[in-house]
Order: sequence, then structure tokens, then C-alpha cells
Amino acid sequence: MNLPSEDDALAQSIAGSLLAREAKVAVVETTAGGLISARLLSVAGASRWYDRGVVAYTGTSKQDLVGIETETLREQGSVSIPAVEAMATTFRERSGVAYCIAESGMAGPQTGRRSAKPAGTSVIAVATPSGVVGREFLFDGSRLEVMACIAEAALEMLRDELATPATV
Amino acid sequence: MNLPSEDDALAQSIAGSLLAREAKVAVVETTAGGLISARLLSVAGASRWYDRGVVAYTGTSKQDLVGIETETLREQGSVSIPAVEAMATTFRERSGVAYCIAESGMAGPQTGRRSAKPAGTSVIAVATPSGVVGREFLFDGSRLEVMACIAEAALEMLRDELATPATV
Repeated sequence: MNLPSEDDALAQSIAGSLLAREAKVAVVETTAGGLISARLLSVAGASRWYDRGVVAYTGTSKQDLVGIETETLREQGSVSIPAVEAMATTFRERSGVAYCIAESGMAGPQTGRRSAKPAGTSVIAVATPSGVVGREFLFDGSRLEVMACIAEAALEMLRDELATPATV
Repeated sequence: MNLPSEDDALAQSIAGSLLAREAKVAVVETTAGGLISARLLSVAGASRWYDRGVVAYTGTSKQDLVGIETETLREQGSVSIPAVEAMATTFRERSGVAYCIAESGMAGPQTGRRSAKPAGTSVIAVATPSGVVGREFLFDGSRLEVMACIAEAALEMLRDELATPATV
């Protein structure tokens, strides 16, 4: 399981790319619960390229902290590519950073409550100076394993976006 | 090192106490980087008692997300009991929750930059319906070990506050 660790190569690679671009990142988490920020912030000197993060667990907190209208989330469903892409672009703009990761999902375990999507479903989006890209995933495992998988996939998506040539 | 784990007894104990009081918690992290929220949110059903969290790494983000004036942080120093107690009470009120943890510290490693306090210094505060209590700690270890120690101490402080009889 990819929990925060000493010498996190993926987080260090992101740190190097952001430093090279003199860019900062902001993070919106729901299901990953703080693990994305914790992995980034385990890298020494992170204050040079990490700006802020939120863990927006309730609809109200998504509105207050991220700046997205609950109406938008209700229309699309909060675990949908349009909603998570909107969280990434809105929080990127509000924070004044170049890059923003956002994710929303269902950590599980599945309860009796009827839900449109199964436990382990995750939508991740990365907003960049060039636009926004969102993807849906389905992860398997315990609640903590799903949280760790989401963090890993989110960091991989950010790394891949940072690997593309910067557009001016 | 106390990283997020399956069957986190401390986080589960907090979950039980908050459920019993029908109360919610909000979290302001700086140095712990998301580990406090991640440990709480590893407990299934956390949406019933966890409201929101922020990782406020820059002065501007403390102002935007927590609602505390950078002037207040500058006067006292952001790693001080008055400043962290102010973050806990301000974010508790802004979030509309009964309990709020806040922490600010120096994860290290120590750089050449002159600093009033050594790496490993951490101030943690817990705001409750009865008031606020802040404490200063000095932790030893790697950057990630310090982050994990802060999360552990913060959760212990919240557990202790929840162990006192509720005042109405």
C-alpha cells in the first residue's frame, strides 16, 4: 500500500518538476482524506511549491472551501468527471496556483445505502495552465487501501501533466 | 511511526466519542500535512462526525481558508500557542462544528535559515464547546516522523478533551 513514506520517489519527481517551472500546486481531497497532501509534504522544502490543500467531506465544505456551488454537485453527482473537473479548475483559480489536483469518490465499505456507484469508485482531475483532465477509476481493497490508491493515481496524473512541455 | 493504518484504535476511539455526542470535528493542519485528517478518515462512516479539513501551508492560505489575519500570525509568530489557539477557535466557528484541532510547526530538516524555534517544534490546539487548550511540543526524528508525531499528539489531545464530561 502506497502510504506516505521516507524518500517518496513520485512526490520527489513532482517537486522537481514544479520547482523547475516555478509553479505551485493546490489539492482538493475528499475520499483520499489528506493522503495526497501528506505525500507531497513529506518532501523537504515543500513550501516552495505546495500552496494549500482542503479535505472537503461535506457539501457545505465543498462550497465554503473549494468555492463550488452545491447545485453543480447535485446536478452532476459529486463523483462525476464534470463535478471533479469543476472542483479542480475552481480551486486552482481561487488559490492562484498553476496546478490543482481534485478527487472525489467512495472509500467504502459499501453500506446498505443505495448508491449510483460502487465503493472504490474515484474521479480524479488535474487542472493546469492548459486546461483540465479528469478520469474515473475503480479501486479494490479495504477503505485505507482505496484511499492510498486514489492518492497514488492522483500523484501519477499530476506527474504526467508535468511531463508534458509547458505551454506559455 | 504512527502513519494511517487499518484499525487505528485512537481514531476509532475519537469516532465513538464524537458519535456519542452527535458532534463533528474540523482540522487545520500545516506541518502534519494531512496526516491528522487521513487518520480520522480511515475510520468507516467518518462522514457522520468529520466535517472538513485544511492544509494551510502559506500565510495567504491561512487567511483564505482558516479566516485568521496574517497580522495576528506575524505578531505572535505562527508557531506560537496564541496563534494556533486562534486558528482552532476561528476555524471551529467558521466551520460550525463543536470540535476543532489546529497545529503549526517546523517539520525540518533544519536549513541554514535563521529561525526562532528548532525543527521538530510543534504547537497543537484543540477548540471545544468549553474553550481552547494549546500545548507546545518538541519532536525528534526525520521530517515524516515529525509529521506522524504531530498527528499522534493532536489526536491524543482531542481524545483527552472528549474524555472530559460534556458541558451543556
